[in-house]
Parts: sequence; structure tokens; C-alpha cells
Amino acid sequence: MGKRIVVALGGNALGTNLPEQMKAVKITAKAMVDLIEDGNEIVICHGNGPQVGMIQNAMAELTRSEPEKYIPCPLSVCVAMSQGYIGYDLQNAMREEMLDRGINKGAATVLTQVEVDPDDPAFQNPTKPIGPFMTEAEARALEKERDYHVVEDAGRGWRRVVASPEPKGIVEIDTIRSLVETDHIVVACGGGGIPVFKTEGHHLKGAAAVIDKDFAAAVLAQQLNADWLIILTAVEKVSIHYKKPAQQDLDVLDPETAEKYIADGEFAPGSMLPKVQAALSFARSAPGRQALITLLEKARDGISGKTGTVIRGVSTAAASGR
Amino acid sequence: MGKRIVVALGGNALGTNLPEQMKAVKITAKAMVDLIEDGNEIVICHGNGPQVGMIQNAMAELTRSEPEKYIPCPLSVCVAMSQGYIGYDLQNAMREEMLDRGINKGAATVLTQVEVDPDDPAFQNPTKPIGPFMTEAEARALEKERDYHVVEDAGRGWRRVVASPEPKGIVEIDTIRSLVETDHIVVACGGGGIPVFKTEGHHLKGAAAVIDKDFAAAVLAQQLNADWLIILTAVEKVSIHYKKPAQQDLDVLDPETAEKYIADGEFAPGSMLPKVQAALSFARSAPGRQALITLLEKARDGISGKTGTVIRGVSTAAASGR
Repeated sequence: MGKRIVVALGGNALGTNLPEQMKAVKITAKAMVDLIEDGNEIVICHGNGPQVGMIQNAMAELTRSEPEKYIPCPLSVCVAMSQGYIGYDLQNAMREEMLDRGINKGAATVLTQVEVDPDDPAFQNPTKPIGPFMTEAEARALEKERDYHVVEDAGRGWRRVVASPEPKGIVEIDTIRSLVETDHIVVACGGGGIPVFKTEGHHLKGAAAVIDKDFAAAVLAQQLNADWLIILTAVEKVSIHYKKPAQQDLDVLDPETAEKYIADGEFAPGSMLPKVQAALSFARSAPGRQALITLLEKARDGISGKTGTVIRGVSTAAASGR
Repeated sequence: MGKRIVVALGGNALGTNLPEQMKAVKITAKAMVDLIEDGNEIVICHGNGPQVGMIQNAMAELTRSEPEKYIPCPLSVCVAMSQGYIGYDLQNAMREEMLDRGINKGAATVLTQVEVDPDDPAFQNPTKPIGPFMTEAEARALEKERDYHVVEDAGRGWRRVVASPEPKGIVEIDTIRSLVETDHIVVACGGGGIPVFKTEGHHLKGAAAVIDKDFAAAVLAQQLNADWLIILTAVEKVSIHYKKPAQQDLDVLDPETAEKYIADGEFAPGSMLPKVQAALSFARSAPGRQALITLLEKARDGISGKTGTVIRGVSTAAASGR
């Protein structure tokens, strides 16, 4: 029976530049359409690290070359641009692959904003480097003029750093739901979504932040009442003792075991840790929800129980023992 | 009774840069929500001249500064980015204005591709300048390396020129229709849409072109079976003998009269002429369809018959005489 699945694509699903993206999305689309062919509903989230970096660099070059004409482009606007850029290639690859297999569904990109809390502690400690390398003088000027946080980056120059706050909700959730329910394949929450927070009245203000796409996908999956969250990455299974002689690949992770491994530092921060956390938050959010972490090309096999690591919301003992 | 209306916004509805756009969309949203308050369904198209120009310039600066890393960004990709950039501000302004008036509808931006004919004669005669000014040497290099058409622009330097082909159909029409039918306010066909043409199989290839947003809006209105196409511009009514002592503002234009005025050269090419042509093509496409050309702030009055120029598909005599 068909399931509703939110898929968070890893970086290799898109490549790092224009020509790579054109090629990568074709492979990505094949894996996604495999899932559709099996009768599932699919919503696709994706990252945008290299892409929003490129756009930020481009907009920064423009401001450098014509400072009187162009103010620095807010990060939220760069994220919006990156959703257009990536969505265009991704929805086309999906459309083409579906039509090639005789599947007649619309593929659509929904410009998506994701609400964050302005009091999120992440704003007090911005750590995510973004945009071009600068001289110290340039960095200090932006710090003064535009309240940017800047840091010296391991001898390679100065960079801006921004916060990575927790996603609280998807602003365009009704739009995405409407399209899923009318048989569309939706690309949403690109780059984790355009980060916004509520100010006075109903106004949404863009935040100088980037949202982790796996956490955004987990919130989207919850709000869409999805059955599965699939987080695609560079390994087939989650492991403990990763890259050590005692490496052990995991088929299943229940909450208690996952919490123990997290406490033991088994998962690398900024890498597998947020993926396991995002998977766990979705799996725990309601009964019957599961998450899968695996390789892009193993998504279909993973959903059929053949590979990947399945993250469950209740422990195996609790689930079978009642 | 509510009507289905496609609105094509003029350039002043968005301004020419980031701060202007933030302000302009608020005024634009008020005029649009007036129409919604009256019970109409609204789909919003918009231009992107200054915005896609900015993005093209930014991407060109990036390629200039790091040519080994960044290939020139195709125009179709820049249009996709501009849809993200403009849609973000526009849908937010719509959302805010609706909520302020107690209207609970989703506002969504749909990344939109518009199909053009690769054999459109416009491709033989590209006339639309785009992107940054260049030296002759830079222009000639792009001409050679990337098959760009370049021209010397009135002593100000060299520029790339692209075609402005006729829109044939909206690729994401089912998506837009689904959202309209589930009570969404949709922003679509931004910048006239990402121009694409069919190649082998089901593949869509981006075209080095820009599509006139009024013509794209007319095709969208036809495919959505809209009642009205509203083209908003810098004048309250279409005129003949424009800016001459004998200027005469028109309340109504029927096809025969419109054709006569067009033949007489009453409407400026690149300005009022394409608007009248787009309005006429929609009004003629099926019985009961009408177009309105007026100012942004007169849209509501225009739809109520109080001002603006209404373009009809059949002559007044034919309509009343049967």
C-alpha cells in the first residue's frame, strides 16, 4: 500500500555547481520515481549549501562592484533565489523521469518559508559560515554597518557566520498539503526553507539564518502526517564506532538505544548527529511514524526493509511486548 | 458574483531594487486584496526586468571574478532565481494583507515554466538587451564561446540581446489550477515564466530568451478559463493620439477598432502595443472573456466598470445586435 513519504536529499543529490546539478538531478529523479512507481506519495526537501553560497558570493560581488546601487542581499532572499534555482532543475528532472515511465503527475516547486523562534538560543551563537571570504577590514565593516557576525576561518580569511535555529513550522503547509492531495510531487523547504519569524501583527521577517534541511523535513513530515521520513546521505546505514575496526552498522534504532549512542558521542555533530536527531524527532511525534537513513540509490530497498537504518519511535520491546 | 481574474502587474508594482520592492509589494497587495475581498479568485503574474538584470549582473560578476570555478549562468536559471526573489516578497505581502483583513487563504508562489517554440522567428532576431554592459572584446568572446548575440548599445557599451518569443503554454498549469481551486492566491509565471522548449522525449530545455509577462498572463488566463485578464500599467486608460493635444482616452476597445488603431500605429511598440495585443488575444479566445488595462490602484474600480479601458472579444455592435 502506498505511503506518504517526505524525502530529505543529501548534498550529492544536487552536486555543487550548475553542470553537476544538471547531471545529479537525473539520478536523483530515478530514485524518487522508483518510490512513486511503488505507489507512494512523495514530497522532496533538499539542502542548498553550495548553491546559496554561490548566490551569496554573486550578490556580494555585485555589491562590491556597485556599492552605491546595490545593498547587500539579505540571506533570506538568497535562500529564496536558491529555491528557484534548484527547484527548476529538480522538478524538471522529476517531470521528465515520470513521463518517461508513463506516470502523469504534476511536479511543482513551492517557495517555502519556515518559521523560527527569534529567541532561539542559536541566534546568540551563530556558527554556520556563509558567503565569500573577506579581509579583516571588510569583515569588520560589515560587522559595524550591518550587524553581521564575522569570524576568522582557520587562516583562510574572514567569513560571516549565521545561526542555525530550530524549525517550528512550515508557513506554506496548506499549499503543500493541497498539492500532495491533488496528486502532485512537491519540492518544498528547499535549503531548509526561507527562515522567517513573526514580528508585529501578521508580518513575517526574514532571519539571517539557515535551517538544517533534515530538521525542516522532519517538521514538514509531521505537519503533513507522513508515514515515513527518508533522510538520504553518503552511507547506506548509520553506524556506531564509525570508521573504527569495531564499526557496527545498524538495521534498526529505537529511541532508548539512539539516546544512549547520542550520549556516548557515537554520531558526529554537523554530520550524522543531526540526521539521527531529525529522524528520531519525527519517529517519536506520533505512533506508526518511522524514519529511514540510507543512500539515495537504496531508498526503494530501504522502504521495503531490505537495507538502511530504520529509526522507530518506540522501542522494539515496547512495540512487540504489549 | 466572484470572477476568476489573472492580473499582470506592471513594473511599478515591484520597484527596481530590494528596498523598493519591499515597499512596493505592500501597495500592490492592498490593490490585489481589494479584488479578493470582492469575492474574486486571483492569480498574479509579474515582470522581472530590473530583478533578472540584477541577478544576471551578479552571476556575471561571479564568473568574471572566478572564471575557472563558475560558468556563466544560463538566463533561464536567472529567471528561476528571480521568481524565488520576487515571489517571496509578493506572497508575503499578500499573506499579511489578507490576514490583516481577516481573510484566510494561502498565498503561494509556483515556480513556472512557459513553453516556447524553438522555431519562433523571434530567435532569428533577438532584440531584448539583458545583463551587464561589456567591452567589445568581452562581448565578442561571449559571442564566440557561448553563441550569445551581442550588440553595441547606443554608445554605452556592448550588451547581450536575447529573443522574446511567444508563449505557447504553461508547463505547471495543473499545479496552478489545483491551487486556485483549493482557494489559494497564486503567484505564477514570474518574469513571463522560465522559457523552455521541448527537445527529445519529454525533456524541457531552458531557452536563452525572455517572455513578455503580459503575453504569458494572457495564455495563463486562457488555460485557467479566467473571466478577466487585468493588465496593470502606468496609465489609467489606453489612449489614442497619446500625449498629443487630441489625446482621447478609451473606455472600451472592441477587436475591429483595436485592429484599426494598431494598424494606424496608435500604440507604442514595446509599451502599450503588446499590452493591447495581449488583452485582445485573451478577450478573443472565448466568449465572455474580457480584459482590463488600467492603473494598479484603479483595478477594483476598473472591474466594477468605473474606469480603465475594457477590451472585448466581440464588437459592441455584434454583442448587442444579435
